[in-house]
Amino acid sequence: MTEQEKAAPEASKLSLDQVFILLEQQDYDQLRLLLDQTHPGQLADLLEAMPPKKRRQLWDLISESQEAETLAFLHDEVRNSLIEEMQPEEVVAAAEQMDVNDLAYMIEELPEHIRQSIEEKLSDEIREHLETNLSFEEGTAGRLMSQDVITVRNDVTLEVVLRYLKLHEDLPEYTDGLMVIDREGFYQGKLLLNTVLTRNKNLLVKEVMNSQHQAILATTDEHDVTLFFEQFHFISAAVVDENNLLLGRIKLDDVIQILRAEADHALMGREGLDEEEDLFAPVINSTKRRTVWLGINLITAFLAAWVIGMYTDTLDKIVALAVLMPIVASMGGIAGSQTLTLTIRGLALDQITSGNRFWLARKEVMIGILNGMLWAVVIAFLSWVWFQDAGISLVIAAAITINLIAAAASGIAIPLILERMRIDPALSGAVILTTVTDVVGFMSFLGLATYFLL
Amino acid sequence: MTEQEKAAPEASKLSLDQVFILLEQQDYDQLRLLLDQTHPGQLADLLEAMPPKKRRQLWDLISESQEAETLAFLHDEVRNSLIEEMQPEEVVAAAEQMDVNDLAYMIEELPEHIRQSIEEKLSDEIREHLETNLSFEEGTAGRLMSQDVITVRNDVTLEVVLRYLKLHEDLPEYTDGLMVIDREGFYQGKLLLNTVLTRNKNLLVKEVMNSQHQAILATTDEHDVTLFFEQFHFISAAVVDENNLLLGRIKLDDVIQILRAEADHALMGREGLDEEEDLFAPVINSTKRRTVWLGINLITAFLAAWVIGMYTDTLDKIVALAVLMPIVASMGGIAGSQTLTLTIRGLALDQITSGNRFWLARKEVMIGILNGMLWAVVIAFLSWVWFQDAGISLVIAAAITINLIAAAASGIAIPLILERMRIDPALSGAVILTTVTDVVGFMSFLGLATYFLL
Repeated sequence: MTEQEKAAPEASKLSLDQVFILLEQQDYDQLRLLLDQTHPGQLADLLEAMPPKKRRQLWDLISESQEAETLAFLHDEVRNSLIEEMQPEEVVAAAEQMDVNDLAYMIEELPEHIRQSIEEKLSDEIREHLETNLSFEEGTAGRLMSQDVITVRNDVTLEVVLRYLKLHEDLPEYTDGLMVIDREGFYQGKLLLNTVLTRNKNLLVKEVMNSQHQAILATTDEHDVTLFFEQFHFISAAVVDENNLLLGRIKLDDVIQILRAEADHALMGREGLDEEEDLFAPVINSTKRRTVWLGINLITAFLAAWVIGMYTDTLDKIVALAVLMPIVASMGGIAGSQTLTLTIRGLALDQITSGNRFWLARKEVMIGILNGMLWAVVIAFLSWVWFQDAGISLVIAAAITINLIAAAASGIAIPLILERMRIDPALSGAVILTTVTDVVGFMSFLGLATYFLL
Repeated sequence: MTEQEKAAPEASKLSLDQVFILLEQQDYDQLRLLLDQTHPGQLADLLEAMPPKKRRQLWDLISESQEAETLAFLHDEVRNSLIEEMQPEEVVAAAEQMDVNDLAYMIEELPEHIRQSIEEKLSDEIREHLETNLSFEEGTAGRLMSQDVITVRNDVTLEVVLRYLKLHEDLPEYTDGLMVIDREGFYQGKLLLNTVLTRNKNLLVKEVMNSQHQAILATTDEHDVTLFFEQFHFISAAVVDENNLLLGRIKLDDVIQILRAEADHALMGREGLDEEEDLFAPVINSTKRRTVWLGINLITAFLAAWVIGMYTDTLDKIVALAVLMPIVASMGGIAGSQTLTLTIRGLALDQITSGNRFWLARKEVMIGILNGMLWAVVIAFLSWVWFQDAGISLVIAAAITINLIAAAASGIAIPLILERMRIDPALSGAVILTTVTDVVGFMSFLGLATYFLL
């Protein structure tokens, strides 16, 4: 390897295109060689980017030693489809190499009969760890923790710690420190590797450990865990029970996975998509899932149609109204979505509370009024150029203003109300919002037209 | 502090509500005390959740020793508004404590005159580091690197390394290893702290260092940097120039910041919102920004209206068409957005390439056909119940099917074309898509009606 190649990570990265070409050429030996040098995280990415047939081909080429970690990196749906094709013994072999939190996550999503047959075959120690993990609710710190913790007692010297570390060939990933416990196993603080390296070796652990390094309660919500890691720049943190007994640790890579999942959820939830969805899932599965969302949308579309239906007489007389009415609804939908997105994001970041809610609502409504008036004038003018009817122009101006104000108010109010009702605003906020802006838009435009123009 | 409190991070966290209450009560001493115990990352979150006046009050209560790091955590807009109120000396004092990458990022966004007066006052060393950083393009690894690297030569023993480390009181954050260089400063590999701790101290660095631990080329795109960190589970990585000369290092916290920014961009870009936008920006600033997006949308809305306008004769004769036409457009928009979101996400994760593009397109169009036919039947039936006109029912069924297929095809094609034209699909994809589904929806429905029903 030349120095240039070493310096450029891309150079050694097995690309998706390469995989497709090698599969096409049936050059399996070369592909196997390259796969062996590829990180499991990237193997998972490659597998997820494969249509089903090729995915199975590729999976068969991945060596057994890489299987466990690769499975841990895959999204639910892709993982389950691969596991279903594996022998139970293979799955167990993989399971025993996984971090217990990845295993807990995987096993929960498996069909009951596969799950049972795996659990039976696990070693007692792993099964016990697994049961501890599963005893905590999904989405809590207890579920995120792994058991690869190196602990030291608080009453030994750094020299003893150094000798103890030398017994290890290598330390587990993301080990930035050792967890300090007392005689009974209660968490006392963290002894950073930095400290071990830089301080005098005759000092006692309790004299140099970081006792400010807080542990995380196992029942803490995983979203709070991410905030905690980000605020304190942690690489790993201890997990304890309510009595401060050390249970395990959470590593930064698990936190990054949650951050990714939260971002995917925010992005995909609003389209009724599942963030765990396999891009290459069978057509029938994807159709079923998406059809539900289309059905929900159809109800709101018929609601809007029903509003229009109340004004058929008006539309019959002034056909220009039918031409212009989608503009009113559309402008409201766009303005409302902006406010909605900001509000949902603010809520997710814990930035909105009773102390600033009204300030924000007032600000958004002010923006709605200003933008409403501005675009009302523009749209009224364009409508007049088109239809040369001052009445229609005045009515559409009024309707645009009303709808943009309603949009701003709903963009704030809908997520706040949903949050209070414990409904995830990222999932249903957008549908409800566009229903409001459609109904208000059509009703104000056609209603005002009926009143003033007929 | 009792053990229970130590175990629960939430207990010590200063909440937004508390801040509002203490500001209200003017209990500044208590607030200052609590702020001093709060992490700069959290201080930044609190500041961002404050309306302008309270934000300035709170900023004045934050101690000078926390200012630098807090500034580094803030989003552009909030940070600039605070800096404008600060004395130049204060800004310089803060700048000198910042990581050089944070400083480079901050200084680039400042108005020219403030920027110059800060640069002049910086120490020569910092200014030199800053210039190196700024010599790389925005969005590259060179911009992300900081200078807090501890290097060791490859021809010394671990004992020498240990002695060298003891000279440090503490190691910089995210130091999981030391960068190994040769005599000339060329990067050779990474010496993990784990290795220093666990291996025999008479071994040479070159014998135990990890030479597989790749460095990142300074011109690498920051998105590739995040993939690289995630794949290899890095905590820090060396940055080198094209000759393999060590320039600095990138830390995992910078990578997490990019991940957050990418997620925000994906979420907010589609609404025409800037991810750096201050939730509490003045009304006028926010109005201006959002008005541009409404203007773009207005063009597409008028395009849709113009399509409807071609069929005024038809609408005049059959008013039921005006009632039903939003349903056709809306269903297309929803189905298309689903495909679009999946495609944009797949592109962002490098999961879509020439090898699977056609497979994916075929899959999405198949889903479009299946869902199109399913909902065509449902909508045809509901329309018949409403208007009892078989002709209208048949026409709407055909239009729904056509529009859902067009939506699926556009949902794949639009982001692929935009990507090839080097336009960010996260920004403009949704607007273009709904223009297509509106136009196709209205045109197929009203066009078929004109042909068959008149």
